[in-house]
Amino acid sequence: MIFIDACLGKKTPYTPVWMMRQAGRYLPEYMKVRSQAGDFLTLCKDSEKACEVTLQPVDILGVDAAILFSDILVVPMEMGMDLRFEKGEGPIFDNPLTNQAQLDALHVEKAAHNLEYVYETIRLIRAQLDQEKALIGFCGAPWTLATYMIEGKGTKTYAQCKKVLYKDPEFMHAILRKVTEALKLYMSRQIEAGVNAVQVFDSWAAALEESAFFEFSWPYMKELSAYLKAKYPQIPVILFPKGISGYLDKIDGEFDVFGVDWSTPIELAKEKLGHKYVLQGNMEPTRLYDKAAIDTGIEHIANVMQNERHIFNLGHGILPDIPVENAKYFIRRVQERTKG
Amino acid sequence: MIFIDACLGKKTPYTPVWMMRQAGRYLPEYMKVRSQAGDFLTLCKDSEKACEVTLQPVDILGVDAAILFSDILVVPMEMGMDLRFEKGEGPIFDNPLTNQAQLDALHVEKAAHNLEYVYETIRLIRAQLDQEKALIGFCGAPWTLATYMIEGKGTKTYAQCKKVLYKDPEFMHAILRKVTEALKLYMSRQIEAGVNAVQVFDSWAAALEESAFFEFSWPYMKELSAYLKAKYPQIPVILFPKGISGYLDKIDGEFDVFGVDWSTPIELAKEKLGHKYVLQGNMEPTRLYDKAAIDTGIEHIANVMQNERHIFNLGHGILPDIPVENAKYFIRRVQERTKG
Repeated sequence: MIFIDACLGKKTPYTPVWMMRQAGRYLPEYMKVRSQAGDFLTLCKDSEKACEVTLQPVDILGVDAAILFSDILVVPMEMGMDLRFEKGEGPIFDNPLTNQAQLDALHVEKAAHNLEYVYETIRLIRAQLDQEKALIGFCGAPWTLATYMIEGKGTKTYAQCKKVLYKDPEFMHAILRKVTEALKLYMSRQIEAGVNAVQVFDSWAAALEESAFFEFSWPYMKELSAYLKAKYPQIPVILFPKGISGYLDKIDGEFDVFGVDWSTPIELAKEKLGHKYVLQGNMEPTRLYDKAAIDTGIEHIANVMQNERHIFNLGHGILPDIPVENAKYFIRRVQERTKG
Repeated sequence: MIFIDACLGKKTPYTPVWMMRQAGRYLPEYMKVRSQAGDFLTLCKDSEKACEVTLQPVDILGVDAAILFSDILVVPMEMGMDLRFEKGEGPIFDNPLTNQAQLDALHVEKAAHNLEYVYETIRLIRAQLDQEKALIGFCGAPWTLATYMIEGKGTKTYAQCKKVLYKDPEFMHAILRKVTEALKLYMSRQIEAGVNAVQVFDSWAAALEESAFFEFSWPYMKELSAYLKAKYPQIPVILFPKGISGYLDKIDGEFDVFGVDWSTPIELAKEKLGHKYVLQGNMEPTRLYDKAAIDTGIEHIANVMQNERHIFNLGHGILPDIPVENAKYFIRRVQERTKG
């Protein structure tokens, strides 16, 4: 698989490309299945429909890898937290974590067991997906999951998390340890069900200042990736801590691919991390509004990453109002431009 | 004035300190005046009340500088755009900019003239403020103002702005040029009314990738600051483009102080910009939830900036739910710690 070869630093005939959120709302085919399923969580739990939307961008756009359709919050949900999605508000945990007793009541092994519908989705996808295309499994980073578990919903200031972090850092670490244990089991089961690579999304890494990132986020991501690399050395691990361009030189640990978000100049990522890791990214997602902007964006990144170990992607998820035609154009242009 | 001396790179008996949004909702005294005034815009236009809330943090916390109480959006409003603040939604322009005719209808000289209530506020403050304390005037950066003028309200993705930027960059530049001209007049009038320094807030600088920042934001900030420095060389200019740690080494131009946000490590700002500019910042605002976290934060920054040209501040605005006692503690501890 060209995508897996690229993750492992091998030469490939062109730079493989996929897009974060490629199975998503910009695709009419996705919207149709989504409306049949009812709400978002129902779609995540319906293995056949989740398989169907996972495969859509492979067929429609010709991306080099599929990424499992699911949500990072199914893990805390199956650990025992009540999750619902409110229209316009996003995810809500009705009883956010405030004390040790609540944390003690959460399950680790049972969560990994209850996520069987995800493993079933993976088996269905792998049975139908072209043998030359990779399937990427994923999870949220412990820190990012903890922000939802503590805040109960999305937040601008992360006020509750910061209060826990400064006033009761031991409780914060206890949450992060438990989530990390659950993720080790969950990602192992994803791999055993058939994913060919895994990506860990630390979407809210930038909610932490440098010292806090290296205390509360990065060690747990590294622990998870080291665990997986020891157990499954052939499975590439991609880490994506978003928005940390100020301290890339302190990134270390055992993993294969570093996901570069669009706020980090690709030149900077290459300088600081290109010798240690394969880089993935990082076109500014709004460039997909315009074909000329797509061309300029590809040209810039392709020039910088010429002869470097690279996987093409957007620097954040594709937006819901991107024309499908432009998404197709992006994928095709990357594959043409990087040939040879 | 110790604050002005520090802005100009002179030795001071201690590192002066103030806080972004120091006249704000965390102060019961502010909430009282705010509720008397009715809504937020009325308070901005009421020179006596705006003066009163500007002076509150100087009296209550002992900060080394006052910052004019106003809002960055009074400029596009007085240029001719209908502005209202909706509870829970923030600012809204009911007729966002979509075409050249709308832009042509906006006023530059008339805006600067209509903002007389701001100049009156400044005169009232300067008449009552301690002679040793500086008064900081401010405005939004052209790019940040343009985002509101085009989107009509706050946005997560800046979709409309990005479409203009990629599909019609000339229109974007026309908006930015006109706003910059209005700001030159407005900031000149603020200085003539009595402010001792000015700060330009580019709150949404990080909405742009590097190449776009250096095309659509930074040149206009530089143009404004160069204009003001040529006309008023004794007035320090502070520029605060938030969240651009990935390309600090490309920052140049004529100004005095670079405002460092909390996502940028202070060590990095010192390395890249400390030789060229005085640095202001950058304590993580949520540290003010906890006194021990305040101490650790101050210690770290004070150690890095020992013997450097520095003004203490938070790395973003103070949050509405910070205990006043902790805000006082922060100010006092900075002044004590940096003495000598």
